[in-house]
Amino acid sequence: MGQIVTFGEVLMRISPRGNKKFIQSNIVEFYFGGTELNVGISISNFGGDVKHISVVSEDFIGETALAYIRQFGMDTSSIVLSKRPLGVYFLEVGAVIRPSMISYNRSHSAFSEIVPAKVNWEKALKKGEWMHWTGITPALSQGAFDTLKEGLKLAREKGMAVSADPTYRSDLWKYGQDPKAALTELLHYSTIFIGGVNEINEVLGTEFGYGNDDFIKASKQLMDTFPTIEKVFDKIRTSLNSSWHKIRARMWNGVDFRETKDLDITHVVDRIGTGDAFAAGLIYGLQQYDDYKAMEFASAACALKHTYEGDVNLATVKEVNSILAGNITGRLVR
Amino acid sequence: MGQIVTFGEVLMRISPRGNKKFIQSNIVEFYFGGTELNVGISISNFGGDVKHISVVSEDFIGETALAYIRQFGMDTSSIVLSKRPLGVYFLEVGAVIRPSMISYNRSHSAFSEIVPAKVNWEKALKKGEWMHWTGITPALSQGAFDTLKEGLKLAREKGMAVSADPTYRSDLWKYGQDPKAALTELLHYSTIFIGGVNEINEVLGTEFGYGNDDFIKASKQLMDTFPTIEKVFDKIRTSLNSSWHKIRARMWNGVDFRETKDLDITHVVDRIGTGDAFAAGLIYGLQQYDDYKAMEFASAACALKHTYEGDVNLATVKEVNSILAGNITGRLVR
Amino acid sequence: MGQIVTFGEVLMRISPRGNKKFIQSNIVEFYFGGTELNVGISISNFGGDVKHISVVSEDFIGETALAYIRQFGMDTSSIVLSKRPLGVYFLEVGAVIRPSMISYNRSHSAFSEIVPAKVNWEKALKKGEWMHWTGITPALSQGAFDTLKEGLKLAREKGMAVSADPTYRSDLWKYGQDPKAALTELLHYSTIFIGGVNEINEVLGTEFGYGNDDFIKASKQLMDTFPTIEKVFDKIRTSLNSSWHKIRARMWNGVDFRETKDLDITHVVDRIGTGDAFAAGLIYGLQQYDDYKAMEFASAACALKHTYEGDVNLATVKEVNSILAGNITGRLVR
Amino acid sequence: MGQIVTFGEVLMRISPRGNKKFIQSNIVEFYFGGTELNVGISISNFGGDVKHISVVSEDFIGETALAYIRQFGMDTSSIVLSKRPLGVYFLEVGAVIRPSMISYNRSHSAFSEIVPAKVNWEKALKKGEWMHWTGITPALSQGAFDTLKEGLKLAREKGMAVSADPTYRSDLWKYGQDPKAALTELLHYSTIFIGGVNEINEVLGTEFGYGNDDFIKASKQLMDTFPTIEKVFDKIRTSLNSSWHKIRARMWNGVDFRETKDLDITHVVDRIGTGDAFAAGLIYGLQQYDDYKAMEFASAACALKHTYEGDVNLATVKEVNSILAGNITGRLVR
Amino acid sequence: MGQIVTFGEVLMRISPRGNKKFIQSNIVEFYFGGTELNVGISISNFGGDVKHISVVSEDFIGETALAYIRQFGMDTSSIVLSKRPLGVYFLEVGAVIRPSMISYNRSHSAFSEIVPAKVNWEKALKKGEWMHWTGITPALSQGAFDTLKEGLKLAREKGMAVSADPTYRSDLWKYGQDPKAALTELLHYSTIFIGGVNEINEVLGTEFGYGNDDFIKASKQLMDTFPTIEKVFDKIRTSLNSSWHKIRARMWNGVDFRETKDLDITHVVDRIGTGDAFAAGLIYGLQQYDDYKAMEFASAACALKHTYEGDVNLATVKEVNSILAGNITGRLVR
Amino acid sequence: MGQIVTFGEVLMRISPRGNKKFIQSNIVEFYFGGTELNVGISISNFGGDVKHISVVSEDFIGETALAYIRQFGMDTSSIVLSKRPLGVYFLEVGAVIRPSMISYNRSHSAFSEIVPAKVNWEKALKKGEWMHWTGITPALSQGAFDTLKEGLKLAREKGMAVSADPTYRSDLWKYGQDPKAALTELLHYSTIFIGGVNEINEVLGTEFGYGNDDFIKASKQLMDTFPTIEKVFDKIRTSLNSSWHKIRARMWNGVDFRETKDLDITHVVDRIGTGDAFAAGLIYGLQQYDDYKAMEFASAACALKHTYEGDVNLATVKEVNSILAGNITGRLVR
Repeated sequence: MGQIVTFGEVLMRISPRGNKKFIQSNIVEFYFGGTELNVGISISNFGGDVKHISVVSEDFIGETALAYIRQFGMDTSSIVLSKRPLGVYFLEVGAVIRPSMISYNRSHSAFSEIVPAKVNWEKALKKGEWMHWTGITPALSQGAFDTLKEGLKLAREKGMAVSADPTYRSDLWKYGQDPKAALTELLHYSTIFIGGVNEINEVLGTEFGYGNDDFIKASKQLMDTFPTIEKVFDKIRTSLNSSWHKIRARMWNGVDFRETKDLDITHVVDRIGTGDAFAAGLIYGLQQYDDYKAMEFASAACALKHTYEGDVNLATVKEVNSILAGNITGRLVR
Repeated sequence: MGQIVTFGEVLMRISPRGNKKFIQSNIVEFYFGGTELNVGISISNFGGDVKHISVVSEDFIGETALAYIRQFGMDTSSIVLSKRPLGVYFLEVGAVIRPSMISYNRSHSAFSEIVPAKVNWEKALKKGEWMHWTGITPALSQGAFDTLKEGLKLAREKGMAVSADPTYRSDLWKYGQDPKAALTELLHYSTIFIGGVNEINEVLGTEFGYGNDDFIKASKQLMDTFPTIEKVFDKIRTSLNSSWHKIRARMWNGVDFRETKDLDITHVVDRIGTGDAFAAGLIYGLQQYDDYKAMEFASAACALKHTYEGDVNLATVKEVNSILAGNITGRLVR
Repeated sequence: MGQIVTFGEVLMRISPRGNKKFIQSNIVEFYFGGTELNVGISISNFGGDVKHISVVSEDFIGETALAYIRQFGMDTSSIVLSKRPLGVYFLEVGAVIRPSMISYNRSHSAFSEIVPAKVNWEKALKKGEWMHWTGITPALSQGAFDTLKEGLKLAREKGMAVSADPTYRSDLWKYGQDPKAALTELLHYSTIFIGGVNEINEVLGTEFGYGNDDFIKASKQLMDTFPTIEKVFDKIRTSLNSSWHKIRARMWNGVDFRETKDLDITHVVDRIGTGDAFAAGLIYGLQQYDDYKAMEFASAACALKHTYEGDVNLATVKEVNSILAGNITGRLVR
Repeated sequence: MGQIVTFGEVLMRISPRGNKKFIQSNIVEFYFGGTELNVGISISNFGGDVKHISVVSEDFIGETALAYIRQFGMDTSSIVLSKRPLGVYFLEVGAVIRPSMISYNRSHSAFSEIVPAKVNWEKALKKGEWMHWTGITPALSQGAFDTLKEGLKLAREKGMAVSADPTYRSDLWKYGQDPKAALTELLHYSTIFIGGVNEINEVLGTEFGYGNDDFIKASKQLMDTFPTIEKVFDKIRTSLNSSWHKIRARMWNGVDFRETKDLDITHVVDRIGTGDAFAAGLIYGLQQYDDYKAMEFASAACALKHTYEGDVNLATVKEVNSILAGNITGRLVR
Repeated sequence: MGQIVTFGEVLMRISPRGNKKFIQSNIVEFYFGGTELNVGISISNFGGDVKHISVVSEDFIGETALAYIRQFGMDTSSIVLSKRPLGVYFLEVGAVIRPSMISYNRSHSAFSEIVPAKVNWEKALKKGEWMHWTGITPALSQGAFDTLKEGLKLAREKGMAVSADPTYRSDLWKYGQDPKAALTELLHYSTIFIGGVNEINEVLGTEFGYGNDDFIKASKQLMDTFPTIEKVFDKIRTSLNSSWHKIRARMWNGVDFRETKDLDITHVVDRIGTGDAFAAGLIYGLQQYDDYKAMEFASAACALKHTYEGDVNLATVKEVNSILAGNITGRLVR
Repeated sequence: MGQIVTFGEVLMRISPRGNKKFIQSNIVEFYFGGTELNVGISISNFGGDVKHISVVSEDFIGETALAYIRQFGMDTSSIVLSKRPLGVYFLEVGAVIRPSMISYNRSHSAFSEIVPAKVNWEKALKKGEWMHWTGITPALSQGAFDTLKEGLKLAREKGMAVSADPTYRSDLWKYGQDPKAALTELLHYSTIFIGGVNEINEVLGTEFGYGNDDFIKASKQLMDTFPTIEKVFDKIRTSLNSSWHKIRARMWNGVDFRETKDLDITHVVDRIGTGDAFAAGLIYGLQQYDDYKAMEFASAACALKHTYEGDVNLATVKEVNSILAGNITGRLVR
């Protein structure tokens, strides 16, 4: 399997331990994350060859971010340095009926000022076989949108697969672009759609419901509009509260509709990055297995991510497959 | 809304992290608390103007307690210094079938030696509109009882509302007073009763059961005995075990009986101070809303408190109202 | 009640906090444990007079292990020092569907090189009334097997009770002995069998099922084969996942079959050593109560252990009996 | 003594413990600081009535900053909220020959976008008797410069004393202003100059040397140029390395030259904010004592600050005066 | 060597890490200590058989204190339980010119309410060969004084050696006794005096100076007054500041005056309990060596204690002797 | 500059924080180290292309070790996995006159069982320009010695430079080899000798003294005996105690004797790995600078290492050169 390429902002995540608020303790922990990076690291943990492309600050914080990424064995050779600071997000982890809260400091970050000239896409995609993008990057700045578009264009020219997770986040998109138009343009370079009815409605301007029939109809209309898209995968979360979720997935690949059973996450450790874990499982799975097995793999990966602190899924292929083999009772592994 | 006044002991709470016992780790955390202070801080977090009256030690521990209280924006100008040490309580947090355990070191604390001469109630209640007391303070010492009585008397003379949470704690009351007589005397200065059938039976010497009918009858008899009391609010906890509770509330305001639905706290973080969070929600709510909405607000506040470490409820009005608006699935707030 | 004697390896357990992996934090915690030691410490916490026999390293780690054991009031006078390092095990604590993982560094530890000449059993068992052994010790090395056998032989000659927890762990037994033969030999010195159908099938070579009838049949055949064995106690765990277990127990004492109800452990804190907590509860209980009450005591002790971090049960007799008295709702103890 | 007013950015300071680098630990601590805030908090700890004027973010980080400032008993009523994030600085604490390193994320912070219209100076200075400014604020943005100038102008019109610490930091001043011109303009509103030959040379364009004679000459020329300035105070640091400093001070008040002896800081705990501690000591001292005693008080305050972690001096007046009384041998205080 | 017996209060010591103040962090550490206990633990670490006699609280804090003491292998069989809380002291560790500060919560502690009837001295001293007391115990309460006196009397009747460290602490002695009279009475039961000119002046009412000649004269007069006293040992501390001390010792044994050289403690870790480490070194040393070697051993032990956190000296005999053999350059020991 | 290759054991280092002993806290920190790895990581931090060759355990501890090494950007492609556990060392950090203490658990580690067949040296040295070895590796096992020898032989055949740090550690060498003979054999493959008179005396069997003249004579005799050795570099440590060292260096390159001035390390943070930092500085320096400048660079690197926790030097080339440019007063770097 060739190199998987991810492109997006690297953020420093800072949060108090457990369920504390910042007002309760001046001792906090940090990890690094970012939706596309999370996908990349997870695939790297599955044994994939992954390159992440980004911009980090030219200081000890940027150096620490690079070290963090390198420890997972990722290729950081296309990460650029900048005089601007690394983006930061602060997180207070909720519990039960209390939601987690996030505050961002990213609007003038090292990444936000990226422009196409900063990335040598030819070189960056040299070994590339698959590229993954999300709706976060084009929402950050005109330069981020332009740079991503240039990368996707080349990726497609090189015949690479392109997976899209076109999440729409209304708190971003401050720089003037119309989200729907921008996402539409980028989806024309994509082959795998990771998202559900909400995301489809967003880009098509439709109003499909959440049932399986509507999902299939929505997927079909999406594929009609974007002929490069071959498959649609939707992860479905049912939340009792902050601490108790269920995860399942469904798919339409132009031929078959399939869905998985719920995995019951009775004690959520950390939900951040669980969607990214699903995308990573899917990208890895589609290169190894058939569509349904890939979706099952992705669901189990997503479920496992809920048990790791931090943004990234630390599970190995062996561990994900053990879940699929039914080992979900938590029996000690020696 | 005028100033809310709380009066009671400030305790330093010391506990190991998570579910550890002291024998397992010599690293511990401290917060400050005390039932009336907890009420005050919570109301302050709701935006109320709150003054807490107490006695703290004249050393760096007392200074730290004052700083703790001030950070919430409270008025500490009527807190008195003493040569005696601040009261301390040690806590080991249980889990599932293991109960939490508390050991107190408060019997000769700075607060326990309070006498009426130490508090200038005229000055202390100058801006006061509401005063709150609990059954803990009169249980600590004769001086505490006397000082509280003097304050309540003046509060009523000034036409302030007075809420009473006359919890009876059999492990206190060591100084000779008869609990029933003492609480009875103080209830004659009160307008809102926060408590259930147990507390009513305690002061009336009755034996009402826990059903709603008995609750109404008990409330009526209470109001007959204490004509100043206008409303009775009862918070009901159903515990599966240390880690899983349900919270609801009911009320009798002389006209209507109402009750709320259960809020399911599937993963309790910290139950200390949840009753105080209910009282605080009620005091704030009764100044803003009708009785039923106030009780709903108080229940949601109480439920939220279970998700914060420490004695005090850190929720804002916006956060409590978000629960009442149905946002209980823990969806991330950005 | 005379002295209870336990014999086995002392391991240093090292793990990151909460559910972290070692890759996520370079701050870790250590406890000491080891299946027989865990049993001994728990009995000591019940007020028993317990001696643990072992070999620890002659360095500051061994000194720390000794201090750890001594703090529980145990007799360490028969623990021997060695130039070899103390065994270590690394633990990553799972959650929900993620299992906990353990990696051992014990194969050339201080204990593994024990030989009979190192232990003066006459002196070690001088005050002994009961000896407990498990299937771990004979699995470690020929010397460990030989030393244990010598101890058991003397124990029986002195008329001591001998409890056996003959767990079979396939990842051990590297030194050449046949597990079945070895365990069989040792069981001939035993009077109480702590184990279920799996363990019985292992030593008898039978294939009994898990139902109660099969359990009784298996127990009978076991007692036929090993006439010294008077009673069989079986702890049954039902796991929803890593974080949610149920515990019950059943017994056959040659006359009666009895079983307890499930205790629901909805939020597991630490499952390591819960089997040892059961054995400890049983040994203590059988010296104080009738067989059924002893089993109930053991089950409650086992359930409580799930709420303590580390390998050992910190519950007191009073705390276990409080569970048996129905106090399982986690009401605060002041 | 009336209210002291400080105006400047509030920064969140984040650093690993001890001498670790971020790459070594993902557990870090935070405090809040900012040169003018540090001065204000220190004076508040001396018992002064202090108001800090600033802009903080309207999120849980800004709330935490406000709570931090409030705990010291400061007046935060003129602090404004903003949708932009709070400024952050990352710190790696050096040792011996390794310097501490700082990386800022402040260029688009909540404070940097201040404009005069955001501060109601009339109201803010209502009780003001003294205002303090530093060279950091005018270096941040045009709006910060303009707002400060407006405040200083009003302060002088009201007859307030104005102390200036016109440090020149070449890494700031990115917005186009000429530092010398800007500082010159602001110094015309000042009555006390806190700085040495370097700072005087910077604003006068002179090249005075470091000797006492040059210091006197420079001070005289400064006073000639800025007739409102009545006194010049210079703190002198001699550094053996990061961990070992000596502190002394000298002054010219138009009449007398005086200097203090060195205080030997053999084991520096934290040097950040020590200059601010000097300024705070001076402002407090000049209101209580004669010029020389004020300078001695400021020097001892500065020396004490080296023993506290974080940006702010936590010493009380009693503690500073104890140093001046010769208690520098660290004898335990019970 | 027979059993050494110490008698005195066990205190829980609580302090923030490093040089933090309580206002700076809600994470604190605890140890247990108490001047006589510190002596006992240190002797136990030297291999001595030591019994500590005290009163601790009958709760999980008292249990933790007992476990702490037991871990050092000490005999706790004469420690009594009480319904009152354990004494606590809070410590803020200073640095350089900042002194450490202590605040006590001990005046109504478990130990303070001791009376002679609580201790069975016959049984407690059964194996005793040496008893050690300090000026703290008689300063706490009449009951503590009486109980100590009873113990000392019996100790002398049994021919035990008695070492006295009659430190006078003016912040204690609140219960009415005259310190001088009380200490005088107790010194009549003592054979070894650990203290210097200050302590001698205190009990004799003399005004000797600090020089060696005065020390000898003072010692002679002390021995004249208290004929049971055979030897006087004085530890001398020279403090540059909180972080840099020098330690030496001198002695008069009725025949010889001797003094040791200074040991230079350039980086003090924790000075609490260093005097107790000296006393422990002396008691151990006098049983093994001649007077001068014992004093040297005690000085090195005292110096080493400055490098351990907490109240107690953790050094072994081997480690102390290594210092005396000249290994003071800190060469790594593998 | 080509690839630098290091070969040696990777150890997990575990130690309590600050100066605590294991008995004082069950919270500990870990890093990874090993003398040759330390050299490699430091060179990597200088920007060099470094490959480390080793054997690590095939479990989550080995995975964590790999991640640790990868974060520094090193080539781990020749690191082999093993079923045996990773070596561990426990460290208690001393202070002042208390030495640090180390206890190893490495004698049956993953690395100790290496044999030549496990390393493909052809492939491993493909890009190699320089190889570094120390006296630790050949001391561990026959296989380690044999494997190292095979690597050195090939390195020399390929014309690579070979630096030797032939430290003799008497606590190792348990497997039967004669240390002198083994080191002699390996030195015949070496071109740079990093060591002083002690190390030369060890391999030559001579008794040279420590003066510069003897150093030159010893170096000459060494070069006569080992004609491939071109240069000798000696780092000299002067220790006042554990916490205060001075570092200087001297060299003989066959032509010139040179020595540097002392660098004064008044507050040692961590001395482990400082010799490795010197070697790394030398290897890097000799590829960039003349011999004297290289030695100065190495000395400054070594001095800087004393300020970082853990085994490895985290300094960059810029930071080392800043020391050489005279910036040793610890002035803040922004």
